[in-house]
Amino acid sequence: MTQLEAALKNNITDEMEAVAKKENLSPEYIKEGIKKGEIIIPKNINHKIKNICGVGKGLRTKVNVNIGTSPVQMDIDEEIEKLKIAEKYGTDTIMDLSLGTVLNDVRKKILELSTVPIGTVPLYQVGFELSKNKKKLTDMKIENIIDVIEKQAKEGIDFMTLHCGATRETLSRMEKEGRILNIVSRGGSMMALWMKHNKKENPLYEYYDDILKILKKYDITISLGDGFRPGTIADATDRSQVQELILLGELAQRAKEAGVQTMIEGPGHVPLDQVVTNIQLEKSLCHNAPFYVLGPVVTDIAPGYDHITAAIGGALAAYSGADFLCYVTPSEHLKLPTVEDVKEGTIATKIAAHSADIARGIPEAIERDIEMSKARRKLDWNKQMKLSIDPEKSKKYREESESSEEDFCSMCGDFCAIKQLNEII
Amino acid sequence: MTQLEAALKNNITDEMEAVAKKENLSPEYIKEGIKKGEIIIPKNINHKIKNICGVGKGLRTKVNVNIGTSPVQMDIDEEIEKLKIAEKYGTDTIMDLSLGTVLNDVRKKILELSTVPIGTVPLYQVGFELSKNKKKLTDMKIENIIDVIEKQAKEGIDFMTLHCGATRETLSRMEKEGRILNIVSRGGSMMALWMKHNKKENPLYEYYDDILKILKKYDITISLGDGFRPGTIADATDRSQVQELILLGELAQRAKEAGVQTMIEGPGHVPLDQVVTNIQLEKSLCHNAPFYVLGPVVTDIAPGYDHITAAIGGALAAYSGADFLCYVTPSEHLKLPTVEDVKEGTIATKIAAHSADIARGIPEAIERDIEMSKARRKLDWNKQMKLSIDPEKSKKYREESESSEEDFCSMCGDFCAIKQLNEII
Repeated sequence: MTQLEAALKNNITDEMEAVAKKENLSPEYIKEGIKKGEIIIPKNINHKIKNICGVGKGLRTKVNVNIGTSPVQMDIDEEIEKLKIAEKYGTDTIMDLSLGTVLNDVRKKILELSTVPIGTVPLYQVGFELSKNKKKLTDMKIENIIDVIEKQAKEGIDFMTLHCGATRETLSRMEKEGRILNIVSRGGSMMALWMKHNKKENPLYEYYDDILKILKKYDITISLGDGFRPGTIADATDRSQVQELILLGELAQRAKEAGVQTMIEGPGHVPLDQVVTNIQLEKSLCHNAPFYVLGPVVTDIAPGYDHITAAIGGALAAYSGADFLCYVTPSEHLKLPTVEDVKEGTIATKIAAHSADIARGIPEAIERDIEMSKARRKLDWNKQMKLSIDPEKSKKYREESESSEEDFCSMCGDFCAIKQLNEII
Repeated sequence: MTQLEAALKNNITDEMEAVAKKENLSPEYIKEGIKKGEIIIPKNINHKIKNICGVGKGLRTKVNVNIGTSPVQMDIDEEIEKLKIAEKYGTDTIMDLSLGTVLNDVRKKILELSTVPIGTVPLYQVGFELSKNKKKLTDMKIENIIDVIEKQAKEGIDFMTLHCGATRETLSRMEKEGRILNIVSRGGSMMALWMKHNKKENPLYEYYDDILKILKKYDITISLGDGFRPGTIADATDRSQVQELILLGELAQRAKEAGVQTMIEGPGHVPLDQVVTNIQLEKSLCHNAPFYVLGPVVTDIAPGYDHITAAIGGALAAYSGADFLCYVTPSEHLKLPTVEDVKEGTIATKIAAHSADIARGIPEAIERDIEMSKARRKLDWNKQMKLSIDPEKSKKYREESESSEEDFCSMCGDFCAIKQLNEII
């Protein structure tokens, strides 16, 4: 029985209990959220997860970290290091987006060594298997897709991105309207290529019910991919993006009816003035299914700093109702992230999520800030380091300052506003 | 005649022409904005400024960079390096916040070598002069303040932060309500100490008209400081902060009547859900005087990353009407910034300002993003580097990637969505 089926029968599962405890909410609340399709617990029945998590309405904003090899950069140990550092800085889930000949090995290693739910984009492995068998992507059959989904399902993958809404209708809307950057989603572009070549409907859409059957069997959460997400802020909220979102809303409803937990993926590249609109559209068209956004980055001119452009968009998105932020690293748009890039991206996204949680009134979020502020008033540097999002960096910076005494700070010296006032107020 | 007096007489000055040209607006628009007190051009009649700028309604969001020595860190050359790097990455103004025995030398050097308007907080020099004469801050007389303002005015300082609203009324509101972090503004804490000790009103408030006379003579813009800005998000938008803002509104009106250009300083530490409220309050209470915000940072738990917490708050603030963003560096709350920290802080704040300008519909802002997106579609890496906010970092990242061919990228290799689609759409 999936978490959704259990909730519909008013059963509270161990997983609901665990999520409730972590969120400081009642198990009843979690169950009702799952029943309505507003909360998910991504967990494959075959996967033991040490740090389980729920995603959705009323819960802390969650953060995902993408790792994985590329065809020209296949160092499994480095990917494991990325996994470790992402977990250290508090990621809630990991997606393995590996490409290249080692992709099966990376996935197995990540499943073995991680403590959090793991997601994939099965289409990448489909592409790999085809090429191994000297076939082209356009030769892809639904059987190839089903095989990979089943294989990864058995291994224990907790959530899968499937670009089921990247249909001929969506594609034709894009072609009619025109875009600056057509498609930047790998899965979306694969389906577009396949549809153009075969002049047939997207098999993920056509055989959706068959796919749902497998997902249900393992209680895999379907993450309905946004293959037509904008790749530049100038293309944001255009007709193909909204068309796909309408279809994703319909597909989410069908998944729910089939007992499959569902979330919706979102952009991408969105200017600040359209962020709230994008969240409201999803909530409305998809009946409050959890919304999983990539960034969004709010400008295109900052390669090297896209963890910052995404933190700006992600904070506003999460405050406005997005439930799940996919991180972006400084290397986005330039290269695969290094371990250091993964750290920077994880922390920036955690900052965005935490800032949104404060604004949403989640008590545990603001409490930590208050503790920090009390430590600042006391000029208690050790406590400030301990409470900070990256104690090592804070400590290093503090040590670099020319401050010797415990209650001294090099910024203002004896002009310290806090110190002066502590003496009289 | 000040820019404001000229505008009131419907005269268009050379400075208005220059600002209009830079903003791609009519000189008439700039003049009308200055007349209403909604736009300022910070420029001392004694200061030749290569890169003049306007701040206020309808103009690009401006960015300020604070530099300056501290009593325990007094390397003038390093401060000049900070000036250079801040200008390189596009700061619109510089504030010299130097403390310590070298503060007069630093200010003169910065005035000599900068190309942008320069601001100061004269109270810091007042404190320095007192201590040089073996006196305490509480011995301060209005003459000491007037002397310093006059000295810096003659030298050519373009805008001055004066904490005129940090009155006994504001202080008593804070004491009645209670705060986690009383005062974190250096100027604010100096005035509070002085008022508590002398049991008299803030001399900046009492002798406001005398101060305005000097500012008018040199056409110095008064930046009405927020001495009671919150130092933690838990104290944001409290009674003393709003009380001070009410007084700043009254003082702005008096400054305008005296022919002195005015802007208002704002917080500081503000949770995301109160950012828009803070902007609207200022616009309403201060009759749309330009709003100059410090950050705001939207969480307190991220020392080492406060350029990111401030970019989140600053982007939303500027989109909601803040006109001028004071940068925050990664070293905020920990130590004086290094040259590298100044660079990181400047870039993060420029990203926030640019993202807001896109959302505000400023044509030049979105045009640059569109150019970048066109270069991405063409996989034209050289053009992407050139258009990026930090071409050197983009170039370095790109070179670190294992990509050899011009149109190849190591992120997805042959799975490149853009490349595949370029061939068929």
